[in-house]
Amino acid sequence: MARPHTLIALPFFAERYDVAKSSISEDLAIVKHTLAKHKNGILETVAGASGGVRYIPFVGRKIANNVLVNLSKKIDDSHRILPGGFVYLSDILGNPQTLRQIGELIATSFAFEEIDAVMTVETKGIPLAAAVSEFLNVPFVIVRRKAKITEGSTISVNYVASSSKRIEKMELAKRSLQPNSRVLIVDDFMKGGGTLTGMTELVKEFDCEVAGMAVLCETRSTEQKVIKDYLSLIDIEEVNVEQKMIKVHPGNFLMKTDWEVF
Amino acid sequence: MARPHTLIALPFFAERYDVAKSSISEDLAIVKHTLAKHKNGILETVAGASGGVRYIPFVGRKIANNVLVNLSKKIDDSHRILPGGFVYLSDILGNPQTLRQIGELIATSFAFEEIDAVMTVETKGIPLAAAVSEFLNVPFVIVRRKAKITEGSTISVNYVASSSKRIEKMELAKRSLQPNSRVLIVDDFMKGGGTLTGMTELVKEFDCEVAGMAVLCETRSTEQKVIKDYLSLIDIEEVNVEQKMIKVHPGNFLMKTDWEVF
Repeated sequence: MARPHTLIALPFFAERYDVAKSSISEDLAIVKHTLAKHKNGILETVAGASGGVRYIPFVGRKIANNVLVNLSKKIDDSHRILPGGFVYLSDILGNPQTLRQIGELIATSFAFEEIDAVMTVETKGIPLAAAVSEFLNVPFVIVRRKAKITEGSTISVNYVASSSKRIEKMELAKRSLQPNSRVLIVDDFMKGGGTLTGMTELVKEFDCEVAGMAVLCETRSTEQKVIKDYLSLIDIEEVNVEQKMIKVHPGNFLMKTDWEVF
Repeated sequence: MARPHTLIALPFFAERYDVAKSSISEDLAIVKHTLAKHKNGILETVAGASGGVRYIPFVGRKIANNVLVNLSKKIDDSHRILPGGFVYLSDILGNPQTLRQIGELIATSFAFEEIDAVMTVETKGIPLAAAVSEFLNVPFVIVRRKAKITEGSTISVNYVASSSKRIEKMELAKRSLQPNSRVLIVDDFMKGGGTLTGMTELVKEFDCEVAGMAVLCETRSTEQKVIKDYLSLIDIEEVNVEQKMIKVHPGNFLMKTDWEVF
């Protein structure tokens, strides 16, 4: 479970626990059955000489729904409202248990897609990208708003920030992404989609392909969203600073995820 | 294992797996023995009515040494040398398996300390803080070089950056840290220790206490280090830009960690 999406040959377990391969097979069958019964993971068996087992993080629809409802309730709190209609989320993005749940959910939605890397932009997207990357077991890369000397050469793009309509710049270390990678873009917050569009451009500049986009929260801004196909865990329907009122629901996650696995 | 450092009562397992408490006790005894035998974790048993078991991530000295030697070899690569004598580490800080190992190591060293929160400064310290926080199962907070509108009110401190000798500013959202918390400070890189000193000041401003400091890499700068008591995983002895030469060893981690647990 510490090495998801990785094929592990049976001799690994046989040697580690000093038992016969047949006992290992029996134990793995129990593990597989238990994960399937509780709908919180898949143990895939690959037969043959180069075979083994592969653990795929995948939570069932009911567990996912519970996580999203609880998360909505947590965010649906008028104390989170900040000047300008922003929403305080730092506690959620700094809670390891919540991050685990969020990471597992996003990894579930992309469990059977080919993903080579996760991409996010600093700062608050980073814990999210780290959590998703852990469950997909692929590296993640951090796009900088202003590259530091510790990154080496970078490739940069300009994009229009949807909130300010200003042209901004983002850049990524040249050596951080291999050409032809399939990249999953994640971020904490989507208003108009400008930042996600910027990252999409950056993915293309690296001769890579966008495999998907996922955000923790989307808000319904007055602007039209420039991004159409994305996954959102939470939908912030309304933030009213004067009335100190916030309306939060689960996002499109349940609808966008293919549950026909279990 | 997904909820380390948390006391879990036996009825939780009995209900989840629909078996008698006595079978659960037997199974947990096997788990405890196996973890101890392989020296990669501790299962603490608490007796009595309010008792249960608690999983404490703790790797043995031999495993830790292997991780550190492999990590040193990975970093000991002249291709990592950047202009100004900086070292490229983004790939290491973006690899989920490596982050897991690093997080588990630092959590091992502080396994029996009272820690309420992990603190780091943006940007590259964040994945590290997230990994440590996961294994200690406490929240982490991100200090900003320049606070964003999405943080709300902040408390800021000025500090002297050891490399530039310039006065810099860092700030942290006021609501992110409770008074009297014991804080573990982590960062990716320590040269003179200016950034760590800044964070120490910030911890005091929040009426909290520094429980420890840990860095992934320390470098031997010509300046004297203003920080004395810290944990380092990797020691970058020398970076010579002209000769494209880098010398890397394990840091003080093995020496500073109390191994008398197993």
